[in-house]
Amino acid sequence: MSLILVLDIIGTLAFAISGVLTALHKRLDAFGILIIAFVAAVGGGTLRDVLIGAPIAWMVDLTYVYVIFGATVFSVIFRKRLGYVRRSLFLFDTIGIALYTIVGVEKGIAAGFSPIICISLGTMTACFGGVLRDILCNEIPIIFRKEIYATACIIGGVVYFILLKTVIPLDFIVIISGSIVFIVRLLAVYFRLSLPSIYTKEELEQQ
Amino acid sequence: MSLILVLDIIGTLAFAISGVLTALHKRLDAFGILIIAFVAAVGGGTLRDVLIGAPIAWMVDLTYVYVIFGATVFSVIFRKRLGYVRRSLFLFDTIGIALYTIVGVEKGIAAGFSPIICISLGTMTACFGGVLRDILCNEIPIIFRKEIYATACIIGGVVYFILLKTVIPLDFIVIISGSIVFIVRLLAVYFRLSLPSIYTKEELEQQ
Amino acid sequence: MSLILVLDIIGTLAFAISGVLTALHKRLDAFGILIIAFVAAVGGGTLRDVLIGAPIAWMVDLTYVYVIFGATVFSVIFRKRLGYVRRSLFLFDTIGIALYTIVGVEKGIAAGFSPIICISLGTMTACFGGVLRDILCNEIPIIFRKEIYATACIIGGVVYFILLKTVIPLDFIVIISGSIVFIVRLLAVYFRLSLPSIYTKEELEQQ
Repeated sequence: MSLILVLDIIGTLAFAISGVLTALHKRLDAFGILIIAFVAAVGGGTLRDVLIGAPIAWMVDLTYVYVIFGATVFSVIFRKRLGYVRRSLFLFDTIGIALYTIVGVEKGIAAGFSPIICISLGTMTACFGGVLRDILCNEIPIIFRKEIYATACIIGGVVYFILLKTVIPLDFIVIISGSIVFIVRLLAVYFRLSLPSIYTKEELEQQ
Repeated sequence: MSLILVLDIIGTLAFAISGVLTALHKRLDAFGILIIAFVAAVGGGTLRDVLIGAPIAWMVDLTYVYVIFGATVFSVIFRKRLGYVRRSLFLFDTIGIALYTIVGVEKGIAAGFSPIICISLGTMTACFGGVLRDILCNEIPIIFRKEIYATACIIGGVVYFILLKTVIPLDFIVIISGSIVFIVRLLAVYFRLSLPSIYTKEELEQQ
Repeated sequence: MSLILVLDIIGTLAFAISGVLTALHKRLDAFGILIIAFVAAVGGGTLRDVLIGAPIAWMVDLTYVYVIFGATVFSVIFRKRLGYVRRSLFLFDTIGIALYTIVGVEKGIAAGFSPIICISLGTMTACFGGVLRDILCNEIPIIFRKEIYATACIIGGVVYFILLKTVIPLDFIVIISGSIVFIVRLLAVYFRLSLPSIYTKEELEQQ
């Protein structure tokens, strides 16, 4: 089994758990929880595959479906131990975006797209499932909140393509650029980093 | 004309009318009513065809477009006689999900997908048009309200695959499993059945 | 470079600017502005290409990406001179729908669809990006407000197919039918034209 497939499965696991936690918080019923876990886990990849024109990954390989189903049952049963708090949701969400960014970039390269499009595909894969999860749960999407989010995915994608020009082996490139997404997002939330404002003082006061 | 095509057309008719009723209730203008009827009728099937990678049914065969247009004009004119009430919307919505579930399952089988994926496709075909209709009309989607909804589609899909292992002829399988979706949904609303709660008393009080 | 490609690029420019103006109005950060500009500019065309089953235009030809990026930087810097008002947003939005309607109709014809479907594709290309832009910015979509909007696109599309039966050269047909979309929308807003109401006085009072 290739590294990229392993990452994809772990990302699926992380996002499915993030979906369950959001759905539990909203007191959805068993079916609603499964749907949100599913949408969070495969939403981004599905959009990517539709845009690329590739077969949808989870429809061809049932491993994804089993992982999501297992993760849902597991995290509903052990929800007390998962902490049931914002912090664990944040952790799984951040692991998910790091892994999915790299999966998206690599699938874009495999389909023959240019670096800019591959980085966009990686960012979409990483962010879209979480946006759908939050919209369906009637929360403001995490991505639109203050701290750097999609920007972390873009930085990771850019690093991936820079390292691709060096002699570093591919597996290390994957690990390094994935870790960068994870760390950038972690630091951004920890230090409450946002993008610099483009508005003048007057404009902000007009609001 | 095959049975499945007839079901698809009747489902289109039922969902188009459900769309018109929702749009009339929101006092949309003539164009808005047509759009909502269209989205309700073809939304689920379009998602299914995009995911399967098949040509979109209504773009290839104009019958759908004519049926939706005819149903819209008819139900706008005769809206008083349709009762103009929640009950008729509910009836057409329930006929729609029963027929679309079977259509979705059969299209999944024809495209060579596994039973789990076929049942998912059937449920999507049945539910997604209604979700879009409700979101565009700024209503909470019926599917997310209390009573069993998508679960009825899943049960119908499972029954379909169980019967497929028997000697029962295909046309009967279609009628039986479609009726099961219809009856499960009807009973669920009549007896106000929901899925059993997974939350402890303390968790619900925390809310 | 063909006329249709030029129109597509100018439409992209107009919609990207409309996206930036909406995002600035909502005080989004730099990344949010870029995303909204992107979604407004390519949302409709992406839906069209997915439905047709064609490769997504902006993923194959990076010109779109550069135009959107350039338009975003330009209009953020010169936002004071753009007027920063509803009126300029309205102007760019109207230019955008006129051009995109024709682009959508022509792509539909090239893919071999019937006139009704081509007109639908044109209307979708023109309207869907703006709908996504407004939903993401938490505004009521312009298309659902009172004045004639999508109807202008449909009229333009119908005129296109009528003129196609005449001896008028294709380039003129493009210019005439595009101008009609622009003028119909302009007049509709200027004279506050809506579609005639289908509701009786009693129904409106019930509301």
